[in-house]
Amino acid sequence: MIIREKEPANLEMPFETLDGFLTPNELFYVRSHFPIPPVDLKTWRLRIEGAVEHPLSLSYEEICAMPTRTIASTLECAGNNRVFLVPKVKGTQWGLGAVGNAEWTGVPLADLLQKAGLKDSAVEVILEGADSGSVSDDPKPTGKIHFTRSIPKAKALADTLLAFQMNGETLPASHGFPLRAIVPGWYAVASIKWLQRIVVTDQPFNGYYQTVDYAYWKENPNGPELLPLTTMQVKAEIARPKINEVLPAGQTYRVIGTAWAAEAEIAQVEFSDDGGKSWQSATLQGEPVKNAWRLWECEWKTPAERGLRTLMVRATDASGQTQPDQRDLNRGTYMINHCLPIEVEIR
Amino acid sequence: MIIREKEPANLEMPFETLDGFLTPNELFYVRSHFPIPPVDLKTWRLRIEGAVEHPLSLSYEEICAMPTRTIASTLECAGNNRVFLVPKVKGTQWGLGAVGNAEWTGVPLADLLQKAGLKDSAVEVILEGADSGSVSDDPKPTGKIHFTRSIPKAKALADTLLAFQMNGETLPASHGFPLRAIVPGWYAVASIKWLQRIVVTDQPFNGYYQTVDYAYWKENPNGPELLPLTTMQVKAEIARPKINEVLPAGQTYRVIGTAWAAEAEIAQVEFSDDGGKSWQSATLQGEPVKNAWRLWECEWKTPAERGLRTLMVRATDASGQTQPDQRDLNRGTYMINHCLPIEVEIR
Repeated sequence: MIIREKEPANLEMPFETLDGFLTPNELFYVRSHFPIPPVDLKTWRLRIEGAVEHPLSLSYEEICAMPTRTIASTLECAGNNRVFLVPKVKGTQWGLGAVGNAEWTGVPLADLLQKAGLKDSAVEVILEGADSGSVSDDPKPTGKIHFTRSIPKAKALADTLLAFQMNGETLPASHGFPLRAIVPGWYAVASIKWLQRIVVTDQPFNGYYQTVDYAYWKENPNGPELLPLTTMQVKAEIARPKINEVLPAGQTYRVIGTAWAAEAEIAQVEFSDDGGKSWQSATLQGEPVKNAWRLWECEWKTPAERGLRTLMVRATDASGQTQPDQRDLNRGTYMINHCLPIEVEIR
Repeated sequence: MIIREKEPANLEMPFETLDGFLTPNELFYVRSHFPIPPVDLKTWRLRIEGAVEHPLSLSYEEICAMPTRTIASTLECAGNNRVFLVPKVKGTQWGLGAVGNAEWTGVPLADLLQKAGLKDSAVEVILEGADSGSVSDDPKPTGKIHFTRSIPKAKALADTLLAFQMNGETLPASHGFPLRAIVPGWYAVASIKWLQRIVVTDQPFNGYYQTVDYAYWKENPNGPELLPLTTMQVKAEIARPKINEVLPAGQTYRVIGTAWAAEAEIAQVEFSDDGGKSWQSATLQGEPVKNAWRLWECEWKTPAERGLRTLMVRATDASGQTQPDQRDLNRGTYMINHCLPIEVEIR
């Protein structure tokens, strides 16, 4: 793993090690804002409160005994690819590997909310992690805050999962043991780790991690508006060759990678070996799985001439969304999905 | 006027020149974010659009010909007193004089909205100034934006005025000619100058000047929430003596100043000459005027001993709100209403 920050741990998958649809737990990127909170399963409880008829306090055993569901879901850090931005922007300098795809097993949030009985006034569901600390960027609240995020009631009821297993194993500590949310199709910031409390609210929540942080400017005829990051933007990434790899001239090379989008499935992946001037279609592998990435490959005849080449890849989803050529500055330090240059040397 | 910034003009009233209930136009503080926009009254129009039955486009003459209302209203910059904060925080370094009280003449916004016909879906009203420019503080939108603020529908209908006169004179250019909003009881940021467009919206507006800027953190059991600044906090200020003034020992001195709050009237003003250890009541002058400040005075026997003294004043409003002793850090760079030390020397 590439260490982007030692403590709290921010670890990146070396993306060239991609080896199949599921990312092994030990290679799955780790994004932490605060130290891993200690957990004692004997006293641990998940509380569900707020605009509900019957507030709940559930033990780990009670949750694990409920009917479960297993879904594959790709998680991408909203700052993935940030190291490609020039000039540099603040935040963890992720390369290509702050993304992974795993199978998550747990209890649908809808089942728990049904048990608690949503009141008619419910509009959002706040997910609160046990991790906490102080933030440093202005404008900032004073004192310690928990890592907290809200999602709309509709998303909470649709497909949000509270997972206690990752790829068939007990959820690792760095991924949120004992319980984390999985909000399919959304940037991973919403998939709260170390989940300890769920609060149903009757008005929108304006917490730090969905206003000053993890937000973007949406153009609007009345002026740009600050909105929380939600769904992942369509994107393809090249796993191999890796950046600055040296390749033999005039050979056939199998370029591989993954592509993903929120909701809509990937319709097409294209590859360019001349910095985006010309494109050839890549071949999608396997079958589409909703909210999971899709592997692709492309047979590439490396050029006969020696020198540097800029590879690019771009994905289009079934709704017609394609990766843009240029960065949208209103996205600040997040949602980086323009076509990235992958430079290699032909020798 | 004290120049806090030359261009755009940010000018402060020397508060020791306080001389009565109304602040003369030429002494009224000026807060600008961008240069004064040029206006040609021949082509100038106020547009009213969005969630209305009949969008309107009104000339200056049409607006001036409507039935008018005149109200006294205190405007305070949300950053007034910022120079008292230690350590220094970013923003214009206002002393005591980024506040003033004037009589405003204009058309009730309610009358215009009634004419346009509010749709049932209306929730907020966006006030857009003609002034525009780029902002520098992250997270920031790209490109130029107008100075824009929304207010709830209820406030728009209650007492918001669109003013074209200030203290009986044509609205000066630096105060928003030809038309500005007056949102009584709210920090002046909402009283948009150079008003050019009113947009009724069917959902809350998250513009720059009510999220990243001109906002504060409200404590909440679910974690602090970022909310727009709205109503002015209860406050009294000493106009005379001024800071660092030298006063004769053992004399009677008439301390004077003003006090204001949003909505509720001022119930009490207290004065201290020992940094807040002991307090004596000041005398309120005249009659209360809703949303306007109130003058007060206090007969003070200056100490017999020479040396430095710290004067303080604190106001309480009719709802029982009193100025706090200490600064609330969740207010960031705004809403400064703790008791301020005014140091003088007895000689």
